[in-house]
Amino acid sequence: MHQIGTLVLLRHGESTWNAENLFTGWVDVPLSEKGMTEARRGGELMREAGLLPDVVHTSLLRRAITTANVALDVADRHWIEVKRDWRLNERHYGALQGKNKKQTLEQFGEEQFMRWRRSYDTPPPPIERGSEYSQDTDVRYQALGDTAPLTECLKDVVARMLPYWEGEVVPDLRAGRTVLLAAHGNSLRALVKHLDGISDTDIAGLNIPTGIPLRYDLSEDLKPLNPGGTYLDPETAEKAAAAVANQGR
Amino acid sequence: MHQIGTLVLLRHGESTWNAENLFTGWVDVPLSEKGMTEARRGGELMREAGLLPDVVHTSLLRRAITTANVALDVADRHWIEVKRDWRLNERHYGALQGKNKKQTLEQFGEEQFMRWRRSYDTPPPPIERGSEYSQDTDVRYQALGDTAPLTECLKDVVARMLPYWEGEVVPDLRAGRTVLLAAHGNSLRALVKHLDGISDTDIAGLNIPTGIPLRYDLSEDLKPLNPGGTYLDPETAEKAAAAVANQGR
Repeated sequence: MHQIGTLVLLRHGESTWNAENLFTGWVDVPLSEKGMTEARRGGELMREAGLLPDVVHTSLLRRAITTANVALDVADRHWIEVKRDWRLNERHYGALQGKNKKQTLEQFGEEQFMRWRRSYDTPPPPIERGSEYSQDTDVRYQALGDTAPLTECLKDVVARMLPYWEGEVVPDLRAGRTVLLAAHGNSLRALVKHLDGISDTDIAGLNIPTGIPLRYDLSEDLKPLNPGGTYLDPETAEKAAAAVANQGR
Repeated sequence: MHQIGTLVLLRHGESTWNAENLFTGWVDVPLSEKGMTEARRGGELMREAGLLPDVVHTSLLRRAITTANVALDVADRHWIEVKRDWRLNERHYGALQGKNKKQTLEQFGEEQFMRWRRSYDTPPPPIERGSEYSQDTDVRYQALGDTAPLTECLKDVVARMLPYWEGEVVPDLRAGRTVLLAAHGNSLRALVKHLDGISDTDIAGLNIPTGIPLRYDLSEDLKPLNPGGTYLDPETAEKAAAAVANQGR
């Protein structure tokens, strides 16, 4: 089947809160030094593979935006078209935002902890409006009004991400462009679930490593010609995915 | 007269070639460490003044792109809409690209040197196709084909910048948005000449300092309500403009 444009997924490098083992969600923390190094490495991998984006789509969060900026500069593609949307944001982690993962695990127990982290349709409790880590007054989300999420499960992320995928990303792919999508663990899991047709149960076991570009070659009916995608650095990707699965331990 | 949106001009911070006193033009060199510091300072000035862009326009050159990225991150506006165009690029310096300013001054003499640097309508000799510092094979300019410049005087920059100003920037201003335009010494001089109605002769004496946001409040007929604009740090701007005027000495 004829191939349309190429999709490149890139999960942001380590943030300061990843390093401190805190639930982040929509809290807009910066990359750590390690995260900056990962972003540069992501750019080197694209450059070495000759996988050069024509357009980049990012979330509205600086850890994804900076990762894209840094990686594209290294790949000499800093000058390409840029599109951003809240629909590519990380999952909103509700009342867990700002909480330590290890403490949350100890406080609520393994079962509840894993349900919040990995169940498809159970969101954490909603964040309190006006609390320290809520985004009530954040001007970038004002247009959402009362529809702005106060918590999300992965199912919610799929539901709000897909309209952007279909409305903004697919047209770029159909135009034959190489599209870089710089986003987050859960917005990328939502997309991969959709692309690879992963079940609500099996998606729990899928972890996407940070900073390693993941290439999807798509057919005209938007099915992966390389199911599961192809990491530009498969060996590091495998090790990193295992480490993500063990967070909070 | 009723004010439309606010325009903020930002000349990129020092590049590695500014630091080495080389003619740069369209050669895509990075910021120096000092340039990164200037970019951060530019962001701090916008944040302190509460001058928060809704959209950023940049050239296709990384010294302007990185300046915008860094300044906007510091001002917490990294998530705004981005537009880029070659029409905001620095003046193409023709055969002088890559040449040392001091050596060029000594080789050609003060009169010729100043004519190339500051005369309105005398471009340097064109750059040789295929030479080290030409952009013949640069993919970002391929769409221009044979219309891509091989040298430019300031008059040429005005002619190619104005269609972008009128077609892309003015509509954002008319929509009431605060527009950040991150660009270069000569593309910004071209715009300021147009806005303030500066003569072909007088523009020679106008220097725009690096890294200091310059605010223009525009009326509905696009005339500055504050002629000459307002620097967010006027004292530093004055010193810096004097230093620019002495380059090559």
